[in-house]
This record gives sequence, structure tokens and C-alpha cells, in this order.
Amino acid sequence: MHNIQEEHFAVDGVPAVLWTSAGSDADRPPLIVIGHGGGQHKTAPGVLHRAHRFVSSGFAAVCVDVPNHGERPTDERYQSIATEIQAAASSGGDLAALLADFHALVAEQTVAEWRAVLDHLDAGPVGYWGVSLGCGLGVPFVAAEPRVRAAVLGLGGASAAATLDAAARIAAPVEFLIQWDDERVPREQSLALFDAFGSTEKTLHANPGRHADRLPEHELDSTVRFFTRHLMPH
Amino acid sequence: MHNIQEEHFAVDGVPAVLWTSAGSDADRPPLIVIGHGGGQHKTAPGVLHRAHRFVSSGFAAVCVDVPNHGERPTDERYQSIATEIQAAASSGGDLAALLADFHALVAEQTVAEWRAVLDHLDAGPVGYWGVSLGCGLGVPFVAAEPRVRAAVLGLGGASAAATLDAAARIAAPVEFLIQWDDERVPREQSLALFDAFGSTEKTLHANPGRHADRLPEHELDSTVRFFTRHLMPH
Repeated sequence: MHNIQEEHFAVDGVPAVLWTSAGSDADRPPLIVIGHGGGQHKTAPGVLHRAHRFVSSGFAAVCVDVPNHGERPTDERYQSIATEIQAAASSGGDLAALLADFHALVAEQTVAEWRAVLDHLDAGPVGYWGVSLGCGLGVPFVAAEPRVRAAVLGLGGASAAATLDAAARIAAPVEFLIQWDDERVPREQSLALFDAFGSTEKTLHANPGRHADRLPEHELDSTVRFFTRHLMPH
Repeated sequence: MHNIQEEHFAVDGVPAVLWTSAGSDADRPPLIVIGHGGGQHKTAPGVLHRAHRFVSSGFAAVCVDVPNHGERPTDERYQSIATEIQAAASSGGDLAALLADFHALVAEQTVAEWRAVLDHLDAGPVGYWGVSLGCGLGVPFVAAEPRVRAAVLGLGGASAAATLDAAARIAAPVEFLIQWDDERVPREQSLALFDAFGSTEKTLHANPGRHADRLPEHELDSTVRFFTRHLMPH
């Protein structure tokens, strides 16, 4: 049994939450940064489910509210872009491309915020887990942050040139998830993003399902083994 | 430690080999049928490696020599087609399509032979593992044989209509392997074959590498867990 401790904190006003094993003797277990999805927040059910699984597998986990999400105030600039995207999409615009450009813009802010959180926690080896919005923001974060030694990304595509450039700079092992029937991210864009990762070790996992369908539980098992392989001392 | 017993036998003159755990008390563990690759045979190093891993994970394993391979006599008909394929390929023919048609032809014989081996062994729940030639012959076998409850297939494509038809008839869970830089099987044909499987549960795993490159060892770990999930009593 694991006694999981949940600690809320903020770095430069950015709210975050850290999960650790209360009963653990290990000092500084490897840390998994979880990037939440669009419209979610740092303690959304899917985030909590993964955080608890990571902690019970010997890791610590942290999640940071993305601007305009969770406890963060409304950001008028992002809000107006999001509204424009919704309007463009409902009149037949290329939703995937608009979202990818938007994620690249938000990432200019979140990469610095997440790195400040790692500094605050004095993090050693880090794993990153994020799909959808968590992939759009995760690709530039993983590319920029050498403490990240392994990343699970997915449900995102490569329509933005900035995303492709960042993906090519990633050298850490990547496990990349595709929902085979994703109605929001065109399959060929997902495959192109997987193609673009500069990592020597990268694995693509595709399962049937639409964008927001629950990922198979065996993928979380696989994620835990992937992080264990790359982050745990042998 | 596992003491692995290797028993050679033949069914209607077709040579096969069965691996079981000598020290096991379990009666009739689930059986994994391994389909060997082109130019290989029932005790090729890659087959042995997987067979031993399966047995040490609680399964039995069996592999049957494909016609024109291993201990089987030269089949003049297959030999002349193989020679034609080599000639066509070296003069710019579509190697993948020619091979797929050839595999579909050979499968007309091997499906019956492998089913006879299952009968001979009085097999209960069966898993199938086969890539490349083992996929070309495996797809029609898995489609035809209800005792197969889970299949790992890969390094094969869907250029032959017979293969697509058989894939669509498969209902068992499938884990499908792609070598991302496969120079023999066009990527889009691999993706089309994955697409075609009728299975509700199917997972695509792609890793960097060319057709004959060694599969990552973590894929064999994944295979064992996949078979355990679907074949072992809970």
C-alpha cells in the first residue's frame, strides 16, 4: 500500500501540485511531469489516475495548471484566440492546424513556467507525460529541457512548423500514442510527428478509438515500464 | 530457473518442435505457435530465443517448418516461383506485392498443416507470433483457427487481396509490429494491414529499424504481457 501525499504549491504565482509517496525512504525519486489536456487542470481525474499510478510505481509526479486553465485567471489574449479558433473551426477551418499554432504560442510561456517548477523542486531525472494539449506543449518543453530523459507524448500532430522543429531537437526516448480513429488530429499528421522525433529510441503505439476516448489501461502499464526502463537506476 | 524440454515430432510428415517446461506442474499451459521467417526454420536463433522466453513465462511453444524450409524437402513449384520473384525484383518488380501473393499461396498449405499440429497436440487456447513470412502465413492461419485467442503479427503488408480479406475476419486481439524504416514492406501497406484487422482490440507498435533489424527487446516483453493478458487464466 502506498500513502500518497498531495502538496499544492505555486512558483511565481503559477499553481502546481506535487504527488509523492509518504512512506517512501527513497530520497528524490525520478519525477514525472504530467501535462494536462485542453479544458482540464492539474487535478483532473485522468491526471490524478496517472499521478497515483506513477507514485505507486516509485516516482514522484507534478502537474502545473496551463494558462487559462484550473486555478489560473482568464488570459484575455488566449481567450480571444480560442474564441477565434472555435469560430474558424465551425465555419470549416483547419482545426488541427489552428490548434497546433495556438499550442506553439502558449508553449512559449509554459516551457519557462515548467522549467521554473523543475528548478523549484530541484529535480533530477525527469519523465514527461502529455497527450493532446499536453503534447502540443510537451514537445517544445521536452526539446528545451535536458532534465527530461524520457517522454510519453501523443494525440498530437505536426501541422505547425515550430512543433516539427522542436520534435527534431528531441533526443530523449519517446513513446508516442495515436488514437487510430482520432477525428481531431489527422492520422498522417500524427505519423509525421512520430517521424520527426530526433530520438534514437522511439516507439509508436496506436490503438482504436477517437480523440477523447479513454486510452487503454495497458498503455498506462506500458508507460510505467517505459519510465522505469529509462529513469530508474538499475 | 526453468528446465526447458525440446521435443521434435512430425504430423503427416511435417516436422515440428515443441518446447515445454520440464519442471512445470501446470497441465496444458497455453500454447504459442511461432511462425518462422523466410529462409529460417523451426529452431532458428530468433525462434529459439522467443520460445524459451515464452516457456519461462508459463507457456508452451511450437514451431513448424514451412515448406521449402528447415528439414522439409525442396518443393519444385515453390522453388520456381521464388526464383521468378527474385528475377522480377532484381528487374524492378514490386517485391512486396510478389511476396504477398506468394505467401497467400503457401498459406493455403500451411494453414492446414498448422491446424493439424494443434489437433495433434490437443491444444486449448493458442497464441500466435509471426512476423514477415510468419505474418504472411499467420494472418490466414489466425483468421481460420478459432483456438487462436491472441496474435502478434508484423513486418507484413496488405498488398494481397487475400491477406486483407483474412485480416478482416480476425476477431482475436492483435499486437502488430512495424519496423518504421522497413525497406521491403511499404509503410502505407503495413498501416493498411493494421487498419484491416477486424479485431476490437488491436495495437500497433512501430520502432525505428529496417526489415531484418533485430526487434527491440522491450517488444518481446510487451509480447509476453500481451499473451499473458489474453491467454492466462486470471
